[in-house]
Amino acid sequence: MTAIKITLPDGSAREYKKGITAGEVAFSIGRRLGEDALIAKINGKMKDLFIPINEDSALQIITYKNKEGIDVFRHSTAHLLAHAVVELFPDAKPTIGPAIEDGFYYDFGISHNFTPEDLEKIGQRMQEIAEKNHKVERMELSESEAKSIFRGNKYKIEMIEELQRESQPISAYRQGDFTDLCRGPHLPSTGKLKAFKLTKTSAAYWRGDSKNDQLQRIYGITFPEKGMLDAHLKSAEEAEKRDHRKLGKELEWFNFFEESPGAPFFYPKGAIIYNELLKFLREEYKKRGYNEVITPLLYEKSLWETSGHWQHYKENMFVIEIEGKEFSLKPMNCPSHILIYKSKTRSYKDLPLRIADFAPLHRNELSGVLAGLTRVRKMSQDDAHIFIAPEQIEDEIFKVLEFTNYIYKEVFDFEFEVELSTRPEKFMGSMEDWNKAEDSLKKALEKKGMGYKIKDGEGAFYGPKIDFHIKDAIGRRWQLATIQLDSQLPQRFDATYIGADNTKHNVVMIHRALLGSLERFIGILVEHYAGKLPLWLAPVQIKILTVADRFEKYADGIKKKIEKNGLRVEIDARTESVGYKVREAQANKIPLILTVGEKEENNGTVAVRTSDNKVYFDVKAGELLKKILENVEGKKVRFEI
Amino acid sequence: MTAIKITLPDGSAREYKKGITAGEVAFSIGRRLGEDALIAKINGKMKDLFIPINEDSALQIITYKNKEGIDVFRHSTAHLLAHAVVELFPDAKPTIGPAIEDGFYYDFGISHNFTPEDLEKIGQRMQEIAEKNHKVERMELSESEAKSIFRGNKYKIEMIEELQRESQPISAYRQGDFTDLCRGPHLPSTGKLKAFKLTKTSAAYWRGDSKNDQLQRIYGITFPEKGMLDAHLKSAEEAEKRDHRKLGKELEWFNFFEESPGAPFFYPKGAIIYNELLKFLREEYKKRGYNEVITPLLYEKSLWETSGHWQHYKENMFVIEIEGKEFSLKPMNCPSHILIYKSKTRSYKDLPLRIADFAPLHRNELSGVLAGLTRVRKMSQDDAHIFIAPEQIEDEIFKVLEFTNYIYKEVFDFEFEVELSTRPEKFMGSMEDWNKAEDSLKKALEKKGMGYKIKDGEGAFYGPKIDFHIKDAIGRRWQLATIQLDSQLPQRFDATYIGADNTKHNVVMIHRALLGSLERFIGILVEHYAGKLPLWLAPVQIKILTVADRFEKYADGIKKKIEKNGLRVEIDARTESVGYKVREAQANKIPLILTVGEKEENNGTVAVRTSDNKVYFDVKAGELLKKILENVEGKKVRFEI
Repeated sequence: MTAIKITLPDGSAREYKKGITAGEVAFSIGRRLGEDALIAKINGKMKDLFIPINEDSALQIITYKNKEGIDVFRHSTAHLLAHAVVELFPDAKPTIGPAIEDGFYYDFGISHNFTPEDLEKIGQRMQEIAEKNHKVERMELSESEAKSIFRGNKYKIEMIEELQRESQPISAYRQGDFTDLCRGPHLPSTGKLKAFKLTKTSAAYWRGDSKNDQLQRIYGITFPEKGMLDAHLKSAEEAEKRDHRKLGKELEWFNFFEESPGAPFFYPKGAIIYNELLKFLREEYKKRGYNEVITPLLYEKSLWETSGHWQHYKENMFVIEIEGKEFSLKPMNCPSHILIYKSKTRSYKDLPLRIADFAPLHRNELSGVLAGLTRVRKMSQDDAHIFIAPEQIEDEIFKVLEFTNYIYKEVFDFEFEVELSTRPEKFMGSMEDWNKAEDSLKKALEKKGMGYKIKDGEGAFYGPKIDFHIKDAIGRRWQLATIQLDSQLPQRFDATYIGADNTKHNVVMIHRALLGSLERFIGILVEHYAGKLPLWLAPVQIKILTVADRFEKYADGIKKKIEKNGLRVEIDARTESVGYKVREAQANKIPLILTVGEKEENNGTVAVRTSDNKVYFDVKAGELLKKILENVEGKKVRFEI
Repeated sequence: MTAIKITLPDGSAREYKKGITAGEVAFSIGRRLGEDALIAKINGKMKDLFIPINEDSALQIITYKNKEGIDVFRHSTAHLLAHAVVELFPDAKPTIGPAIEDGFYYDFGISHNFTPEDLEKIGQRMQEIAEKNHKVERMELSESEAKSIFRGNKYKIEMIEELQRESQPISAYRQGDFTDLCRGPHLPSTGKLKAFKLTKTSAAYWRGDSKNDQLQRIYGITFPEKGMLDAHLKSAEEAEKRDHRKLGKELEWFNFFEESPGAPFFYPKGAIIYNELLKFLREEYKKRGYNEVITPLLYEKSLWETSGHWQHYKENMFVIEIEGKEFSLKPMNCPSHILIYKSKTRSYKDLPLRIADFAPLHRNELSGVLAGLTRVRKMSQDDAHIFIAPEQIEDEIFKVLEFTNYIYKEVFDFEFEVELSTRPEKFMGSMEDWNKAEDSLKKALEKKGMGYKIKDGEGAFYGPKIDFHIKDAIGRRWQLATIQLDSQLPQRFDATYIGADNTKHNVVMIHRALLGSLERFIGILVEHYAGKLPLWLAPVQIKILTVADRFEKYADGIKKKIEKNGLRVEIDARTESVGYKVREAQANKIPLILTVGEKEENNGTVAVRTSDNKVYFDVKAGELLKKILENVEGKKVRFEI
């Protein structure tokens, strides 16, 4: 009996007898780790916990906390699914069943289309198999052994022949009576799987090719604890309720048509939201010294060659031929702004020069990845390029951080996180300039008192950047603002300024978009607020409901006074019950619902219901208007009296 | 001697002896007509005045008042030019010399490039030849006669052979020693030409094809009286001073780059003008019940097939292939708005539904015809489509006329003319519907008290329309608003509404743009006002000049007060003379120039200079601000105290 040395991630080493398994090592370190262990990383390779270790090795126990652990957990649940399916549908031919973004799926060759009732039954059978706590075993097979095990399943036979052709090992995993061709690794037993749910079915094609056999796909999600599954289901339900595509359509704010994939139609109410955001940004631009420009959308190839987009980004651009020359719809504004910058000689006295633009941008996203407002082909960014001298970096970045903080914290009351991405391995420019630039960014962040994480080496090759991620009301993270320093693009265009020393210098650019794209931002806002937008942004801000039609005149007088102040107000004077009218206004996400009846008319008051469903009775109409104007003027998120 | 009968346009007939010429008839009617006569229309054909008339004929004397008269006048001046050129440059080979839009040109085969001095000399020689008052003669020639006359001029030989091939008569015109191959007709003598000017030279190609010989072209203008030439030159000079391309660049309002032909870049100051126009329109839209939408720019071919654009307008659209399908950048908004209209069931209660859109439109204009802001490839229209029931035509058209009148007359103080174009020969829909529709348009025009001309048969095949033409400050006419009735496009898309009778009806559409395109409108405004925009539209509205730097603080106080009211104001506190600073501010077309010095500071006043160059001294600052706000609020064209 020989001893071997196992080195753990913290650098400590222990001796074990040869042939020990990673699972046993985990228990030897602690019971909790033993129970949480899913697979093991042995000398850099992912292995099953139950494989004997026969030599000195570096070992890391992988749990659900690791990305690799989550993937294996999901993949083992896919095996469990296939196990249940072949028991219930003996004709089904398992093909492949990978872990995906938020769960797993398994594709089956079967003439039957799975029904919701089937999913119910399959899920129960999975539960039963899991509870039997079958041991999972790995088998290494010859081609003929494998073909014998999987005879009758042409998909597996095809895969076996492919592995053979590519001289790859052929392995399979067995749990109880079920064996699946698989590279592994897997969980050591089915008992580890406790909290899963099959979510939907769809058609699929063998190897994703519509010329091949059609298959039936089952999707599912899985978690190590029931509590996690429940939380996920609840948040998915909440996310579905808030889904901006659903709300946008229901509320008639925006919609999509197949004639223009990935390009939203903002209906009148949605266009109000869009234009209010633009108005807000323009007011801020005026205060903060930004200059808006209006620019063309189509540019000749030569411009994109100079900028480098033709070489590195062409597949994302829509290309048009005009009179024998190639043009492209612009995917970003930078080159347009450099043309404007270069249209005259610039002096250091002109800097910082802040050029803002809301031009529609087009990016050639595949139709398969388009998703509502958050992944589109057409959008407008709240884009600006700031041209500065290198010594202005810190000051100007500070101003941009200040602007971002104002929007995120003061206006939208978002929680957010900040990341600073620094010099990558491959970079352009001098080390000294990089150090100075990163230093300026850090100083600006610290001066603003903004906590930040450093993403080491994750900057672009042409400069460091600062990213902002907000956390929405149901805890999802969205990347929004990016502030990118760039000294390379100005050099490609030879964009310079005359310094105080009367000689030419290379100008530095800041690319920055604070909302990101207006389309995406609106999508996120709708989900964050579940449609209940702040008063200043809501398409209809106020709805006045009459208790009976004889109060319509009184309601109308109030409406006129409110309207005169530029607010968006409607009356509902239908002869429906107040309760019905309130529910409808709430369904339409109206921030302020005013009710007027006899008492109100006599007292010159209204009853007010806010989107938080707080009710204030007998509020003087003039008093309310003052509060409303203060709220709108101050761009408050909530309305209180 | 036989008598013949000549019938005149008024129907009267006179007898003349056979062989009389049209020129003689003209003199017999009146001396003035005789002198003004240029050519004659005999039995519907244009003929020389000096051709004998040998049979009963209908005769119209053509003078400079007729389009045909102007063309012949110009064409005869082109012959005069060629006459002078061959005298001065015996090597020059005349090719062709037509009348064009605003004058004439002649192309010569010659190795020499004409200089401005050459033009001077040629013009003088033309004057001398004209004064000799050579009689002009027409000759009908055989091919060999013609070839003999034009031997040595390969271009004329080529033309002679072509005429022969096409069995067309070969004719030439002689004046003094100079003979030109020409179909005619021509003026009877060179003495009729008195007031002409050669304007420029350029290169050209034989038959306009760059593969052929290069030729030298000389352009000129010509008028029957010196006064008309002088007036034209003066107005051309005025037009050049006002040229929006020149002013746009000088004032840094907008510019063009070769990377994006036909698509303007609005610089910060130009973008202010653009956005102020948008703001103005949006305010009006709110008052007038229009709903703005924001729509995609790229649409799949099938949409354009339904609308008919693919069949009839494809060459004007920019086409892009995406994932194997053809898309086009929209050249107009109508189909987008029909998609929105059709996105839900519409009731008669929803009508009129007014959908407005400022989406950028793209039209594939040839690069050769692009001209500043007035002929572009990218533009935004102040476009709206109004969906109505047929019985709402008159009311809604009246509202649109009211809106147009408000913009043209109240806001911009334009003189304008209105034209109603009626049913063309080929039309769709029933005669009855057409009559009703035309009647409704007339009633609306009459109700609004708008005088109009009828353009008989010039409506589109799908409906009648109303056009507006404004007259600018130097007398040029520009077509702007179009109000087009259309019942065909809604039918192509099957766009309907549920009537009060609970059954489906076809909806009618009004296409209307009042400014036309914002780009073109801005171009016209700049030329109309020679850059001196009304106060509310000017990018910088007010400039405060200090008499000496010690008054900067006082100036700054005033600036802050003005700025707080959302106005655009700058200070010029440089240590330059006031005269210099005033001239610079005027060159920058600043509507209000305020000067502050000791007296003003002591009295709390300013001196005000308006764009009309009126000066008001010692105006109380508060009083001025009130006037300014009234002026901006009221969108006045002029500023007065």
